[in-house]
Amino acid sequence: MQPILTVGSVAFDSIKTPFGEVSRVVGGAATYFSIAASFFTDVRMVAVVGDDFVEEQMRVFSGRRIDLTGLQRVPGETFRWKGEYSFNLNSRETIYTHLNVFDQFRPVLPESYRPTPFVFLANIHPALQLQVLDQVSAPQFVAADTMNYWIEGTPAELRQVLERVDALVINDEEARELSGEANLVKAARAIQRMGPKLLIIKRGEYGVLMTGDQGFFAAPAMPLEEVSDPTGAGDTFAGGFMGYLAAAGEITEAVVTRGVIAGSALASFAVEDFGLDRLLRLTPAELRDRFDAFKRLTHFEAL
Amino acid sequence: MQPILTVGSVAFDSIKTPFGEVSRVVGGAATYFSIAASFFTDVRMVAVVGDDFVEEQMRVFSGRRIDLTGLQRVPGETFRWKGEYSFNLNSRETIYTHLNVFDQFRPVLPESYRPTPFVFLANIHPALQLQVLDQVSAPQFVAADTMNYWIEGTPAELRQVLERVDALVINDEEARELSGEANLVKAARAIQRMGPKLLIIKRGEYGVLMTGDQGFFAAPAMPLEEVSDPTGAGDTFAGGFMGYLAAAGEITEAVVTRGVIAGSALASFAVEDFGLDRLLRLTPAELRDRFDAFKRLTHFEAL
Repeated sequence: MQPILTVGSVAFDSIKTPFGEVSRVVGGAATYFSIAASFFTDVRMVAVVGDDFVEEQMRVFSGRRIDLTGLQRVPGETFRWKGEYSFNLNSRETIYTHLNVFDQFRPVLPESYRPTPFVFLANIHPALQLQVLDQVSAPQFVAADTMNYWIEGTPAELRQVLERVDALVINDEEARELSGEANLVKAARAIQRMGPKLLIIKRGEYGVLMTGDQGFFAAPAMPLEEVSDPTGAGDTFAGGFMGYLAAAGEITEAVVTRGVIAGSALASFAVEDFGLDRLLRLTPAELRDRFDAFKRLTHFEAL
Repeated sequence: MQPILTVGSVAFDSIKTPFGEVSRVVGGAATYFSIAASFFTDVRMVAVVGDDFVEEQMRVFSGRRIDLTGLQRVPGETFRWKGEYSFNLNSRETIYTHLNVFDQFRPVLPESYRPTPFVFLANIHPALQLQVLDQVSAPQFVAADTMNYWIEGTPAELRQVLERVDALVINDEEARELSGEANLVKAARAIQRMGPKLLIIKRGEYGVLMTGDQGFFAAPAMPLEEVSDPTGAGDTFAGGFMGYLAAAGEITEAVVTRGVIAGSALASFAVEDFGLDRLLRLTPAELRDRFDAFKRLTHFEAL
């Protein structure tokens, strides 16, 4: 079992969906990722919060396998985001993004983090992703996330990141934009030529499509009767996926396909309630049951 | 092995996609369905063509296990449809629909068709679907397709059909419209209460979601590098699905899940070329290979 290091945002989120509204709850990519990954292995977090992020908020991390040595606390306000979802949850509008202390964030790895073999660079400025990667002494398996904002705004730096990662986790529209290909198979091949040999394409309610050396693997999302809030589902997926890989300690076809299911299972819980609420009360037994449910959801006998 | 009866359109299609254009090629739901189903079992077709549908067109059925005793040929022009697809093939515009001889179509089953145990009512006026069902002496397993036009225009007759079918094959937007539920799990339950115990929801490039007594089964679509023309993909899926069930002769969990894969495999070929072209040159060996490819696409090991 190997530990995993992640860098990304810790935030205060305000979220409105057709099913309710919450204000100033703990969120952020690094938060969702770390809590999800900690179901499988030890997580080392690199992030920044303001002095308004106090013990009450820190409680989301307590009792979990999350090392917070690399969580900087600086004067000022924590990153804040507000989003509102459409009636079918398939699109959302960002009401505001206040970077606050994140604006001046310079990730510094504690000495104890430097030998971490598994690394996940959450969706932040590619220059910051590179700074983190430069500080890891001997990375064995590195994955990154990104978004259209960086694809359009900082393409050169993003290309440098892509050259140095083993895996990229993005959504289907980002894959099309990054590659300039409308067809997803062609898009995947084009992105693989940029660096990442393993590509994981998130398709929201339709699940995940992965491609590596062995061809494509497709996992559906779990059909759910109650979906309250999709916030953090992608980062939760990434946490479950990468956490499972780090726990396995090796990258084989069996491991990465099970990793996709582990990530999908965690994400299927994350959306059942607002913010982190469902993940925070999730038990390992429930997670195993959901993994088995994915097996039943997809199983058919060969001819 | 049991034979299957189908009723639906045989048509002249004109199709424009970003990858090309064809004019006045043979199409129609009953055509795609019958050719797909004939890979597995004997098909009995009920449909109508005009006197412009001659030997050249009839050739698409020749050498296949398709009984055309119930194909009426009447004076006038064959049903014609023209459609144009958007750049990403995800939406299409109907340029025209000329019912022609289909407008006066009254399905009459030849005596030899009446004892057919498996029945598929393709997407036509629900009153015609009922007329066909009334003529089948002892149907064992009946499935139907429908569309938003009948959901909105003839809801009472559609409800009568739903009360008498074992399975319904529709797309996700139709499922939401028919049920009035945005959530697909709730939509499925609402539709099952209308009659069909087995519901197969087509999601285009995202595959198929099925639900019956045993919970949900999800099958992805095969990721394809070249998609030329989606016309007929849904009817081809239905043909493969129902053809496989009829060939198995019994309705078990193993049979219906394999049926979904059989249908998905056939549909994945149908879209590779324009109109019927790819299906017409498809071999049973290619079909078996594609079925195996679906197993590789979806397989993961239990924890």
